[in-house]
Amino acid sequence: MIRIDNRKYDQLRDVHITRNYLKRPQGSVLIEMGDTKVICTAMIDDKVPPFLKGTNTGWVTAEYSMLPGSTIQRKARESARGRIEGRTQEIQRLIGRSLRQAIDLGQIGERTIWIDCDVIQADGGTRTASITGGFIALVDAVNWLYEKGDIETFPILNFISAISVGIVDNQPLLDLCYEEDHKASVDMNVVMTDNNEFVEIQGTGEEISFSRKELDQLLNLAQKGINELIEMQREALGNIAELIGKNKKAEGDRDE
Amino acid sequence: MIRIDNRKYDQLRDVHITRNYLKRPQGSVLIEMGDTKVICTAMIDDKVPPFLKGTNTGWVTAEYSMLPGSTIQRKARESARGRIEGRTQEIQRLIGRSLRQAIDLGQIGERTIWIDCDVIQADGGTRTASITGGFIALVDAVNWLYEKGDIETFPILNFISAISVGIVDNQPLLDLCYEEDHKASVDMNVVMTDNNEFVEIQGTGEEISFSRKELDQLLNLAQKGINELIEMQREALGNIAELIGKNKKAEGDRDE
Amino acid sequence: MIRIDNRKYDQLRDVHITRNYLKRPQGSVLIEMGDTKVICTAMIDDKVPPFLKGTNTGWVTAEYSMLPGSTIQRKARESARGRIEGRTQEIQRLIGRSLRQAIDLGQIGERTIWIDCDVIQADGGTRTASITGGFIALVDAVNWLYEKGDIETFPILNFISAISVGIVDNQPLLDLCYEEDHKASVDMNVVMTDNNEFVEIQGTGEEISFSRKELDQLLNLAQKGINELIEMQREALGNIAELIGKNKKAEGDRDE
Amino acid sequence: MIRIDNRKYDQLRDVHITRNYLKRPQGSVLIEMGDTKVICTAMIDDKVPPFLKGTNTGWVTAEYSMLPGSTIQRKARESARGRIEGRTQEIQRLIGRSLRQAIDLGQIGERTIWIDCDVIQADGGTRTASITGGFIALVDAVNWLYEKGDIETFPILNFISAISVGIVDNQPLLDLCYEEDHKASVDMNVVMTDNNEFVEIQGTGEEISFSRKELDQLLNLAQKGINELIEMQREALGNIAELIGKNKKAEGDRDE
Amino acid sequence: MIRIDNRKYDQLRDVHITRNYLKRPQGSVLIEMGDTKVICTAMIDDKVPPFLKGTNTGWVTAEYSMLPGSTIQRKARESARGRIEGRTQEIQRLIGRSLRQAIDLGQIGERTIWIDCDVIQADGGTRTASITGGFIALVDAVNWLYEKGDIETFPILNFISAISVGIVDNQPLLDLCYEEDHKASVDMNVVMTDNNEFVEIQGTGEEISFSRKELDQLLNLAQKGINELIEMQREALGNIAELIGKNKKAEGDRDE
Amino acid sequence: MIRIDNRKYDQLRDVHITRNYLKRPQGSVLIEMGDTKVICTAMIDDKVPPFLKGTNTGWVTAEYSMLPGSTIQRKARESARGRIEGRTQEIQRLIGRSLRQAIDLGQIGERTIWIDCDVIQADGGTRTASITGGFIALVDAVNWLYEKGDIETFPILNFISAISVGIVDNQPLLDLCYEEDHKASVDMNVVMTDNNEFVEIQGTGEEISFSRKELDQLLNLAQKGINELIEMQREALGNIAELIGKNKKAEGDRDE
Repeated sequence: MIRIDNRKYDQLRDVHITRNYLKRPQGSVLIEMGDTKVICTAMIDDKVPPFLKGTNTGWVTAEYSMLPGSTIQRKARESARGRIEGRTQEIQRLIGRSLRQAIDLGQIGERTIWIDCDVIQADGGTRTASITGGFIALVDAVNWLYEKGDIETFPILNFISAISVGIVDNQPLLDLCYEEDHKASVDMNVVMTDNNEFVEIQGTGEEISFSRKELDQLLNLAQKGINELIEMQREALGNIAELIGKNKKAEGDRDE
Repeated sequence: MIRIDNRKYDQLRDVHITRNYLKRPQGSVLIEMGDTKVICTAMIDDKVPPFLKGTNTGWVTAEYSMLPGSTIQRKARESARGRIEGRTQEIQRLIGRSLRQAIDLGQIGERTIWIDCDVIQADGGTRTASITGGFIALVDAVNWLYEKGDIETFPILNFISAISVGIVDNQPLLDLCYEEDHKASVDMNVVMTDNNEFVEIQGTGEEISFSRKELDQLLNLAQKGINELIEMQREALGNIAELIGKNKKAEGDRDE
Repeated sequence: MIRIDNRKYDQLRDVHITRNYLKRPQGSVLIEMGDTKVICTAMIDDKVPPFLKGTNTGWVTAEYSMLPGSTIQRKARESARGRIEGRTQEIQRLIGRSLRQAIDLGQIGERTIWIDCDVIQADGGTRTASITGGFIALVDAVNWLYEKGDIETFPILNFISAISVGIVDNQPLLDLCYEEDHKASVDMNVVMTDNNEFVEIQGTGEEISFSRKELDQLLNLAQKGINELIEMQREALGNIAELIGKNKKAEGDRDE
Repeated sequence: MIRIDNRKYDQLRDVHITRNYLKRPQGSVLIEMGDTKVICTAMIDDKVPPFLKGTNTGWVTAEYSMLPGSTIQRKARESARGRIEGRTQEIQRLIGRSLRQAIDLGQIGERTIWIDCDVIQADGGTRTASITGGFIALVDAVNWLYEKGDIETFPILNFISAISVGIVDNQPLLDLCYEEDHKASVDMNVVMTDNNEFVEIQGTGEEISFSRKELDQLLNLAQKGINELIEMQREALGNIAELIGKNKKAEGDRDE
Repeated sequence: MIRIDNRKYDQLRDVHITRNYLKRPQGSVLIEMGDTKVICTAMIDDKVPPFLKGTNTGWVTAEYSMLPGSTIQRKARESARGRIEGRTQEIQRLIGRSLRQAIDLGQIGERTIWIDCDVIQADGGTRTASITGGFIALVDAVNWLYEKGDIETFPILNFISAISVGIVDNQPLLDLCYEEDHKASVDMNVVMTDNNEFVEIQGTGEEISFSRKELDQLLNLAQKGINELIEMQREALGNIAELIGKNKKAEGDRDE
Repeated sequence: MIRIDNRKYDQLRDVHITRNYLKRPQGSVLIEMGDTKVICTAMIDDKVPPFLKGTNTGWVTAEYSMLPGSTIQRKARESARGRIEGRTQEIQRLIGRSLRQAIDLGQIGERTIWIDCDVIQADGGTRTASITGGFIALVDAVNWLYEKGDIETFPILNFISAISVGIVDNQPLLDLCYEEDHKASVDMNVVMTDNNEFVEIQGTGEEISFSRKELDQLLNLAQKGINELIEMQREALGNIAELIGKNKKAEGDRDE
């Protein structure tokens, strides 16, 4: 089978990661996966949501948006409609949950780190690109605190990357572009750590259901792609990458 | 290990299904899974969303809400806040997607079937109970059309049931109640058909990530639970159950 | 004249009151008047609105909603529309005002008691059923505080019940069902105490105006119906009923 | 008993009615009742709400608002809050219902007459002044259609006026000013026709309930006040007043 | 060239200023410029916005609205639509900015003065009339504080007036009425002080652009009109006018 | 005087214009003026607003937004707040009005061209950069129609550019960066054509008023800057620039 863009079934699109893309945020990344381009920023706020006040614990939250010009049909602004779509809410909750898995929130004090993912061009896989790019922005913001001496321990526990997989014409594929995604009968987003463990699995039979065997094929593809993405994150982060995972969460250590 | 309510790790809570619970809707069900109680209704509207106008195809959509008195802390009404929470949107999108997998929308004409799931008492697993109960309400509404002669073919393609599974204290468990859900390190909702195939998998490591082996254990539990639930649906539906799956979708038949 | 459901002009529909219908709220009632079914809950919150802060006085407030499946045409959710209808606002203000007449707010400390009335099936008279059922939920919530020793004085001053009356085909009728209500030329909701006094009168000539004589006939009917409802409330409450009215409001005692 | 402003218990405040107060609307009135001042306009729109399309029937609807400078504490704009208060909704529904009782909607074609009541100064009784003033604006707008020949029959069926009554310090009073209203234990708004019949009665025991005898006293006061107001409306309208009630509604005639 | 209402090209419409138009606000003015009529009120609130808390500095803010009956086509209420139009926001920001130029905010303590401008009849130039009238209301409110002894220094630094100018059929005109405004190719609003200096200039080529020479002609006209308006403000304010500008802002004095 | 970034008082910042920045929109530009970076897109929609239906005339409208990471303090999303700020509304109205001056709307048929300006980094002058960049995106979108043969006449009538000017420490300056803008006592945005004529002038005395002489100095600076910007636009557009202004608007031609 030949894919639309001549890739193999288990091949990622070209990935480019530009760190320090903007000058205002503590962390900012332009991530490009093929024609999908997302600006991910991480900004630190010295406040936490009400449920964390007085706990000496921080928070990571995410917002996601598509620019009107990112899609073929102009994407109407959610601000103009006055309400945020269900799809957007789902995505920003997913990004936030995934990235909170990367960090020991007890080590950053009562701070909120806002992860903003703004899609400037969409060609499939924007939510997973947001997680992969957002992770780097998060690490840079945390490092900014660490280098200033505002936090004592480097609190990033592990790498987090994400990728989409799906079944198109009965063929499991890695990293679907928009045209493939549109035709997919099964669509799955997978978020994993550098320990080969799962953080999130969201799989949907778009038109038809899928078997246990197909699920296994998809998870294998996802695992391969995520391993490659984590290598790129590691390379992009340079020296900082070595700080990741050095410190383990005091409690919550898993005893298997 | 002993569960809070003395169940075994792979045991469902007591399930009660009351068909025709209300007199206005074409289909209405009270589903009780332990202390979780959800009213699921199916109502037929002779209109379709704009994107389906003129296609001779119908639609199934779902809404979900929790009554203020369903939770320990009073649940503030989303109407009073003027906006629908992300969690609610996520759930109603999940219910809608799942139930659309049960029906050949090309057989019901330009009609929308509204599935409303109102939680009157919440004790964990409200979204999966909504799918399991909503399926029966959907079948009853479709049967109402069928018996009136408004549709020629009985369009229900398969059963759909859903259940939650999770890992609590390193132990995979079936059908979590609220207290278990609260403590779970991994939480997963699974929707399946009576062909043992998946419609949706949504798994989240709440605090820690999970391994491929743990994933497999959870999917095994879910499959067991769903098989039991489908038997209860079959029983509740009586004769109508026999009509399910008799007709296959003309196109979209899967050729493996 | 024969009524649609064979009742006499001055006859209530069958009334069923189920106390402790739900397990989360401090008070919860399912009230059924014919086919009208309303879940009324009372939940205690340890906060008061800003205008009562520091006054050592409590508050009772009410919210009302109809489930989508409660009506013949599906009732669109107010949360989905993003705004609460005028009719709903009118009803919840009426319920709140009426129930505040039952209680000495100075005796419950700075607490808010939320009365939630959710109509699961509508067949006329939902707002008056909400008041009649909500009263019992309120008493149960207050009793929960009283038994725990959180309040010293049982603060319920009198019973409160409500009923609708109206003129259909020139005939004054008690307790209109939906079909009668639809045809009524005059429609009136009356709230009274067990002292035969009025708390609220809301009468509307729907198409034509009404005379003083007709008003008197309607008030007589309402009084009869409310007396019967208060007897049912008394019976449902059992021993607790005897505590009602034992303590009079310190100030505000009426000297006639 | 001496009232705050030296009136007798059954005396209206000074009433001034200025017709044609503004030049844009088809009908416009400044009504002053003591220090309460309301601008009432009636504007004709050649459209009807969806439920009346194709019925050859018109509609009358009302909106009500208080200017920020009308009250002692600045009244925050509902546009700035983004939602209309329950009190406002209740009032505008009352005004609309009351004025629809004045007109044979079948005689004005598919037109909506918008009644806007904007309180520029509030000193009690703004909703009843809105009805009394709005009636005149409505008649002027209807007359504008009639004189242009757009409608054949003068469709105003009767006069409509409204007044507030209440009990202050156990004394029933007519036409409460703000200070009296604030202290009233019972508060009632009454809308009547020139046939001495009721259109609306809305009575509320603010702190205590009220007896049947007190109700009768209040209704007597209201009737006296409304009779006087209708005389002032008649005078203000001059010749046009003579057209009112000439034509009776074809169907809906009441046969007693 | 003869103007629609027989004015000369550089002639203002008749201006009437009624001080103390309402009894609740600390300052209130009805300003009429031809058929344009605006109620301007100034009300004092003992709170400031968050960014001024603890600074011992006050604030002046403005809101603007058109009554539904002020325009030929009924103006739909922004409260009913649930959002404030861009035009309204632009106008109320302009009014607020302009009037803040009149006052030394450091002299009024932590108070907000709300300027509300409600257009009861619109015939062009409502925003500039709001500024001219709002200034007088502001002075009266400030004087109310000053006379009570709540502030020590009279903080009004200079007069502020505003006028519209425009080009109609190639002719620069002063103070456009609605019909002229509608036809204007260039439309400009100018706000000035009694020192002949500019506070705001907002000029728009509606259909065509305009030259530097035309700009100069328009500014000359505006300056003439504003000088006349300031004389009327001075006259309307009587003795209070003499207090204006007596005290200069301590810092921020301009050294030219 | 030395400016913060070593520019002369009448010197623009470095300007970079990247055409065809994105692949979905018909026109897309990244404009950089110093550290200010705005993505401007132009997208064609085959619909017009209601007021233009059936007129065979098109429309140009603009939306503007700042990414959360564009500012030093994270800019909260307007979609999350549910309402668009006054500042945003003002800016998008300004952009739309300005760009409509560039085009003969009667030549593009019933189409809307959406101009979206998304600020990815803000350092002063974002609204004027949006106009200057948006003009190029508009020309590219129009050219796309022209080259496809969808429109017969090239409808761009003139160039449009915009710049900010202001007075800082008594010194008039061209093209203020954020730090200068923050300190400016007078702030002015000017939009002009390549005929040296004005489209918009918006000048505000932020703290103090300004004289006619200062206004003249500012306009001279603006004119110089805009001439330079138009040259850059001309260069960026290459051959297409020669089509601009070839066709004059049939009616509305100005006869001076």
